[in-house]
Amino acid sequence: MSRSIALKAGLAAAFLAAATFVGAGMMGAAVAEGSAEGVIKYRKAQMKALGGHMGAIAGIAKGEVTFTEDLAGHAHAINEVAKTLAKSFPEGTGPDAGDTAALATIWEQPDDFTAAIKALEDESAKLIEVAGGGDPAATGAQVGALGKNGCGTCHETFRKKK
Amino acid sequence: MSRSIALKAGLAAAFLAAATFVGAGMMGAAVAEGSAEGVIKYRKAQMKALGGHMGAIAGIAKGEVTFTEDLAGHAHAINEVAKTLAKSFPEGTGPDAGDTAALATIWEQPDDFTAAIKALEDESAKLIEVAGGGDPAATGAQVGALGKNGCGTCHETFRKKK
Repeated sequence: MSRSIALKAGLAAAFLAAATFVGAGMMGAAVAEGSAEGVIKYRKAQMKALGGHMGAIAGIAKGEVTFTEDLAGHAHAINEVAKTLAKSFPEGTGPDAGDTAALATIWEQPDDFTAAIKALEDESAKLIEVAGGGDPAATGAQVGALGKNGCGTCHETFRKKK
Repeated sequence: MSRSIALKAGLAAAFLAAATFVGAGMMGAAVAEGSAEGVIKYRKAQMKALGGHMGAIAGIAKGEVTFTEDLAGHAHAINEVAKTLAKSFPEGTGPDAGDTAALATIWEQPDDFTAAIKALEDESAKLIEVAGGGDPAATGAQVGALGKNGCGTCHETFRKKK
Protein backbone atom coordinates (compact mmCIF):
# COMPACT_ATOMS: atom_id res chain seq x y z
CA MET A 1 0.00 0.00 0.00
CA SER A 2 1.45 3.33 -1.05
CA ARG A 3 1.98 6.05 1.51
CA SER A 4 -0.66 8.14 -0.21
CA ILE A 5 -3.32 5.44 -0.08
CA ALA A 6 -2.41 4.61 3.50
CA LEU A 7 -2.78 8.27 4.37
CA LYS A 8 -6.22 8.44 2.80
CA ALA A 9 -7.53 5.28 4.41
CA GLY A 10 -6.01 6.09 7.76
CA LEU A 11 -7.27 9.64 7.62
CA ALA A 12 -10.83 8.49 7.12
CA ALA A 13 -10.58 6.02 9.99
CA ALA A 14 -8.86 8.46 12.31
CA PHE A 15 -11.33 11.14 11.44
CA LEU A 16 -14.31 8.96 12.26
CA ALA A 17 -12.76 8.30 15.63
CA ALA A 18 -11.69 11.86 16.38
CA ALA A 19 -14.13 14.17 14.72
CA THR A 20 -17.18 15.93 16.04
CA PHE A 21 -18.82 16.09 12.64
CA VAL A 22 -21.67 13.87 11.63
CA GLY A 23 -21.32 13.38 7.93
CA ALA A 24 -22.76 11.37 5.11
CA GLY A 25 -20.67 8.45 4.00
CA MET A 26 -19.61 7.67 0.47
CA MET A 27 -22.54 7.94 -1.88
CA GLY A 28 -23.29 7.40 -5.51
CA ALA A 29 -20.88 6.52 -8.27
CA ALA A 30 -17.18 6.18 -7.64
CA VAL A 31 -14.70 8.35 -9.53
CA ALA A 32 -10.93 8.24 -9.16
CA GLU A 33 -11.11 11.32 -6.95
CA GLY A 34 -13.58 9.80 -4.46
CA SER A 35 -17.33 9.50 -4.93
CA ALA A 36 -19.11 11.72 -7.45
CA GLU A 37 -21.21 13.12 -4.61
CA GLY A 38 -18.10 13.69 -2.52
CA VAL A 39 -16.36 15.57 -5.32
CA ILE A 40 -19.43 17.74 -5.94
CA LYS A 41 -19.65 18.51 -2.22
CA TYR A 42 -15.95 19.30 -2.12
CA ARG A 43 -16.02 21.78 -4.97
CA LYS A 44 -19.07 23.45 -3.43
CA ALA A 45 -16.98 23.92 -0.29
CA GLN A 46 -14.20 25.39 -2.45
CA MET A 47 -16.71 27.77 -4.07
CA LYS A 48 -18.06 28.73 -0.65
CA ALA A 49 -14.53 29.60 0.44
CA LEU A 50 -13.97 31.60 -2.75
CA GLY A 51 -17.28 33.40 -2.25
CA GLY A 52 -16.38 34.27 1.32
CA HIS A 53 -13.00 35.69 0.40
CA MET A 54 -14.45 37.55 -2.58
CA GLY A 55 -17.23 39.01 -0.42
CA ALA A 56 -14.65 40.19 2.08
CA ILE A 57 -12.59 41.78 -0.70
CA ALA A 58 -15.67 43.54 -2.05
CA GLY A 59 -16.48 44.93 1.40
CA ILE A 60 -12.99 46.36 1.68
CA ALA A 61 -12.98 47.72 -1.87
CA LYS A 62 -16.33 49.43 -1.37
CA GLY A 63 -15.12 51.04 1.83
CA GLU A 64 -17.65 49.26 4.03
CA VAL A 65 -14.75 48.26 6.27
CA THR A 66 -11.30 49.76 6.68
CA PHE A 67 -9.38 46.48 6.53
CA THR A 68 -7.22 47.12 3.47
CA GLU A 69 -4.47 45.15 5.20
CA ASP A 70 -6.57 41.98 4.69
CA LEU A 71 -6.77 42.30 0.91
CA ALA A 72 -3.64 40.39 0.04
CA GLY A 73 -4.51 37.52 2.42
CA HIS A 74 -7.90 37.00 0.82
CA ALA A 75 -6.39 37.23 -2.66
CA HIS A 76 -3.79 34.68 -1.62
CA ALA A 77 -6.44 32.25 -0.36
CA ILE A 78 -8.36 32.63 -3.64
CA ASN A 79 -5.16 31.98 -5.56
CA GLU A 80 -4.45 28.82 -3.58
CA VAL A 81 -7.96 27.46 -4.15
CA ALA A 82 -7.79 28.38 -7.85
CA LYS A 83 -4.69 26.23 -8.21
CA THR A 84 -6.57 23.19 -6.87
CA LEU A 85 -9.85 23.78 -8.70
CA ALA A 86 -9.40 21.96 -12.02
CA LYS A 87 -9.13 18.53 -10.42
CA SER A 88 -12.51 19.04 -8.71
CA PHE A 89 -14.26 18.66 -12.05
CA PRO A 90 -13.41 15.12 -13.19
CA GLU A 91 -15.48 13.31 -15.81
CA GLY A 92 -18.46 11.70 -14.14
CA THR A 93 -19.33 14.61 -11.86
CA GLY A 94 -21.50 16.54 -14.28
CA PRO A 95 -25.21 17.40 -14.23
CA ASP A 96 -26.23 13.72 -14.31
CA ALA A 97 -24.11 12.79 -11.30
CA GLY A 98 -25.82 14.71 -8.54
CA ASP A 99 -26.97 18.04 -7.20
CA THR A 100 -24.66 20.38 -9.10
CA ALA A 101 -24.94 23.64 -10.99
CA ALA A 102 -21.99 22.63 -13.19
CA LEU A 103 -22.98 22.56 -16.84
CA ALA A 104 -21.99 19.89 -19.35
CA THR A 105 -20.17 22.72 -21.16
CA ILE A 106 -17.28 22.13 -18.74
CA TRP A 107 -16.54 18.76 -20.30
CA GLU A 108 -17.54 19.82 -23.83
CA GLN A 109 -15.16 22.80 -23.85
CA PRO A 110 -12.37 21.66 -21.57
CA ASP A 111 -9.79 24.10 -22.93
CA ASP A 112 -12.05 27.08 -22.32
CA PHE A 113 -12.83 25.80 -18.84
CA THR A 114 -9.16 25.39 -18.02
CA ALA A 115 -8.53 28.90 -19.31
CA ALA A 116 -11.30 30.28 -17.11
CA ILE A 117 -9.78 28.68 -14.01
CA LYS A 118 -6.39 29.99 -15.07
CA ALA A 119 -7.90 33.48 -15.23
CA LEU A 120 -8.99 33.16 -11.59
CA GLU A 121 -5.49 32.10 -10.65
CA ASP A 122 -3.85 34.91 -12.62
CA GLU A 123 -6.19 37.72 -11.56
CA SER A 124 -5.91 36.77 -7.89
CA ALA A 125 -2.10 36.60 -8.18
CA LYS A 126 -2.18 40.06 -9.71
CA LEU A 127 -4.35 41.36 -6.85
CA ILE A 128 -1.83 40.11 -4.28
CA GLU A 129 0.82 42.12 -6.11
CA VAL A 130 -1.25 45.24 -6.76
CA ALA A 131 -2.68 45.39 -3.21
CA GLY A 132 0.86 45.28 -1.89
CA GLY A 133 1.74 48.32 -3.98
CA GLY A 134 -0.80 50.49 -2.17
CA ASP A 135 -2.16 52.34 -5.20
CA PRO A 136 -5.91 52.60 -4.54
CA ALA A 137 -7.03 53.13 -8.13
CA ALA A 138 -4.96 50.20 -9.38
CA THR A 139 -6.18 48.02 -6.52
CA GLY A 140 -9.82 48.89 -7.10
CA ALA A 141 -9.44 48.18 -10.80
CA GLN A 142 -7.82 44.83 -10.06
CA VAL A 143 -10.63 43.86 -7.68
CA GLY A 144 -13.01 44.56 -10.54
CA ALA A 145 -10.90 42.50 -12.93
CA LEU A 146 -10.85 39.59 -10.48
CA GLY A 147 -14.64 39.66 -10.15
CA LYS A 148 -15.21 39.99 -13.88
CA ASN A 149 -12.53 37.73 -15.39
CA GLY A 150 -11.86 35.45 -12.43
CA CYS A 151 -15.43 34.71 -11.31
CA GLY A 152 -17.80 36.10 -13.92
CA THR A 153 -16.45 34.50 -17.08
CA CYS A 154 -16.59 31.01 -15.63
CA HIS A 155 -19.99 31.46 -14.01
CA GLU A 156 -21.53 32.81 -17.21
CA THR A 157 -20.46 29.91 -19.38
CA PHE A 158 -20.04 26.92 -17.13
CA ARG A 159 -22.56 27.28 -14.31
CA LYS A 160 -26.33 26.96 -14.41
CA LYS A 161 -27.96 30.37 -14.08
CA LYS A 162 -29.40 30.98 -10.62
CA MET B 1 -4.22 62.80 4.40
CA SER B 2 -2.30 59.71 5.41
CA ARG B 3 -1.40 57.09 2.83
CA SER B 4 -3.74 54.65 4.55
CA ILE B 5 -6.74 56.96 4.46
CA ALA B 6 -5.95 57.91 0.88
CA LEU B 7 -5.84 54.24 0.01
CA LYS B 8 -9.22 53.59 1.58
CA ALA B 9 -10.95 56.57 -0.02
CA GLY B 10 -9.32 55.96 -3.38
CA LEU B 11 -10.11 52.27 -3.25
CA ALA B 12 -13.79 52.95 -2.74
CA ALA B 13 -13.86 55.42 -5.60
CA ALA B 14 -11.85 53.22 -7.91
CA PHE B 15 -13.97 50.24 -7.07
CA LEU B 16 -17.18 52.04 -7.87
CA ALA B 17 -15.70 52.92 -11.25
CA ALA B 18 -14.17 49.54 -12.02
CA ALA B 19 -16.27 46.91 -10.40
CA THR B 20 -19.05 44.75 -11.69
CA PHE B 21 -20.66 44.35 -8.28
CA VAL B 22 -23.79 46.17 -7.28
CA GLY B 23 -23.50 46.74 -3.57
CA ALA B 24 -25.22 48.54 -0.77
CA GLY B 25 -23.54 51.72 0.35
CA MET B 26 -22.60 52.59 3.89
CA MET B 27 -25.47 51.90 6.24
CA GLY B 28 -26.29 52.31 9.89
CA ALA B 29 -24.02 53.50 12.64
CA ALA B 30 -20.39 54.33 12.01
CA VAL B 31 -17.64 52.52 13.89
CA ALA B 32 -13.92 53.12 13.52
CA GLU B 33 -13.68 50.04 11.31
CA GLY B 34 -16.34 51.20 8.83
CA SER B 35 -20.11 51.02 9.31
CA ALA B 36 -21.59 48.58 11.82
CA GLU B 37 -23.47 46.90 8.98
CA GLY B 38 -20.33 46.78 6.90
CA VAL B 39 -18.35 45.13 9.68
CA ILE B 40 -21.09 42.57 10.31
CA LYS B 41 -21.22 41.79 6.60
CA TYR B 42 -17.44 41.48 6.48
CA ARG B 43 -17.18 39.03 9.32
CA LYS B 44 -19.98 36.96 7.79
CA ALA B 45 -17.84 36.78 4.65
CA GLN B 46 -14.90 35.69 6.81
CA MET B 47 -17.06 33.00 8.42
CA LYS B 48 -18.27 31.87 5.01
CA ALA B 49 -14.66 31.48 3.91
CA LEU B 50 -13.83 29.57 7.10
CA GLY B 51 -16.87 27.34 6.62
CA GLY B 52 -15.86 26.61 3.05
CA HIS B 53 -12.32 25.64 3.95
CA MET B 54 -13.52 23.62 6.93
CA GLY B 55 -16.08 21.80 4.80
CA ALA B 56 -13.36 20.97 2.28
CA ILE B 57 -11.11 19.68 5.05
CA ALA B 58 -13.92 17.51 6.42
CA GLY B 59 -14.55 16.03 2.97
CA ILE B 60 -10.89 15.07 2.68
CA ALA B 61 -10.70 13.73 6.22
CA LYS B 62 -13.79 11.58 5.74
CA GLY B 63 -12.39 10.15 2.52
CA GLU B 64 -15.14 11.58 0.34
CA VAL B 65 -12.39 12.95 -1.91
CA THR B 66 -8.77 11.93 -2.31
CA PHE B 67 -7.32 15.44 -2.17
CA THR B 68 -5.09 15.09 0.89
CA GLU B 69 -2.62 17.40 -0.84
CA ASP B 70 -5.11 20.28 -0.35
CA LEU B 71 -5.27 19.93 3.45
CA ALA B 72 -2.41 22.25 4.30
CA GLY B 73 -3.66 24.97 1.93
CA HIS B 74 -7.10 25.03 3.52
CA ALA B 75 -5.56 25.01 7.00
CA HIS B 76 -3.33 27.89 5.95
CA ALA B 77 -6.28 29.95 4.71
CA ILE B 78 -8.13 29.30 7.99
CA ASN B 79 -5.04 30.37 9.90
CA GLU B 80 -4.76 33.61 7.92
CA VAL B 81 -8.43 34.48 8.50
CA ALA B 82 -8.12 33.59 12.19
CA LYS B 83 -5.34 36.15 12.55
CA THR B 84 -7.62 38.89 11.21
CA LEU B 85 -10.78 37.88 13.05
CA ALA B 86 -10.57 39.73 16.36
CA LYS B 87 -10.76 43.16 14.75
CA SER B 88 -14.04 42.21 13.06
CA PHE B 89 -15.83 42.35 16.41
CA PRO B 90 -15.46 45.96 17.55
CA GLU B 91 -17.75 47.48 20.18
CA GLY B 92 -20.93 48.68 18.52
CA THR B 93 -21.38 45.68 16.22
CA GLY B 94 -23.29 43.47 18.65
CA PRO B 95 -26.85 42.13 18.58
CA ASP B 96 -28.35 45.64 18.68
CA ALA B 97 -26.37 46.85 15.68
CA GLY B 98 -27.83 44.72 12.93
CA ASP B 99 -28.52 41.27 11.58
CA THR B 100 -25.93 39.24 13.47
CA ALA B 101 -25.77 35.97 15.36
CA ALA B 102 -22.97 37.38 17.54
CA LEU B 103 -23.95 37.30 21.21
CA ALA B 104 -23.31 40.09 23.70
CA THR B 105 -21.14 37.54 25.52
CA ILE B 106 -18.36 38.51 23.10
CA TRP B 107 -18.06 41.94 24.65
CA GLU B 108 -18.92 40.77 28.19
CA GLN B 109 -16.16 38.12 28.21
CA PRO B 110 -13.54 39.62 25.92
CA ASP B 111 -10.66 37.57 27.29
CA ASP B 112 -12.50 34.30 26.68
CA PHE B 113 -13.45 35.46 23.20
CA THR B 114 -9.87 36.37 22.37
CA ALA B 115 -8.77 32.97 23.67
CA ALA B 116 -11.35 31.23 21.45
CA ILE B 117 -10.06 33.03 18.37
CA LYS B 118 -6.51 32.18 19.39
CA ALA B 119 -7.53 28.52 19.57
CA LEU B 120 -8.66 28.69 15.93
CA GLU B 121 -5.33 30.21 14.99
CA ASP B 122 -3.34 27.65 16.96
CA GLU B 123 -5.29 24.56 15.91
CA SER B 124 -5.14 25.54 12.23
CA ALA B 125 -1.40 26.21 12.50
CA LYS B 126 -1.01 22.78 14.04
CA LEU B 127 -2.97 21.21 11.19
CA ILE B 128 -0.64 22.77 8.61
CA GLU B 129 2.25 21.13 10.43
CA VAL B 130 0.61 17.77 11.11
CA ALA B 131 -0.79 17.43 7.56
CA GLY B 132 2.72 18.01 6.23
CA GLY B 133 3.98 15.11 8.33
CA GLY B 134 1.74 12.62 6.52
CA ASP B 135 0.65 10.58 9.56
CA PRO B 136 -3.03 9.82 8.88
CA ALA B 137 -4.05 9.17 12.49
CA ALA B 138 -2.40 12.35 13.72
CA THR B 139 -3.89 14.34 10.86
CA GLY B 140 -7.40 13.00 11.45
CA ALA B 141 -7.11 13.77 15.15
CA GLN B 142 -5.95 17.29 14.40
CA VAL B 143 -8.86 17.88 12.01
CA GLY B 144 -11.13 16.87 14.89
CA ALA B 145 -9.30 19.20 17.27
CA LEU B 146 -9.65 22.08 14.82
CA GLY B 147 -13.39 21.48 14.51
CA LYS B 148 -13.91 21.11 18.22
CA ASN B 149 -11.56 23.69 19.73
CA GLY B 150 -11.21 26.04 16.78
CA CYS B 151 -14.84 26.29 15.66
CA GLY B 152 -17.00 24.61 18.27
CA THR B 153 -15.88 26.36 21.43
CA CYS B 154 -16.49 29.79 19.98
CA HIS B 155 -19.80 28.89 18.38
CA GLU B 156 -21.14 27.35 21.58
CA THR B 157 -20.46 30.37 23.74
CA PHE B 158 -20.45 33.38 21.49
CA ARG B 159 -22.91 32.68 18.68
CA LYS B 160 -26.67 32.50 18.76
CA LYS B 161 -27.84 28.89 18.42
CA LYS B 162 -29.19 28.09 14.98
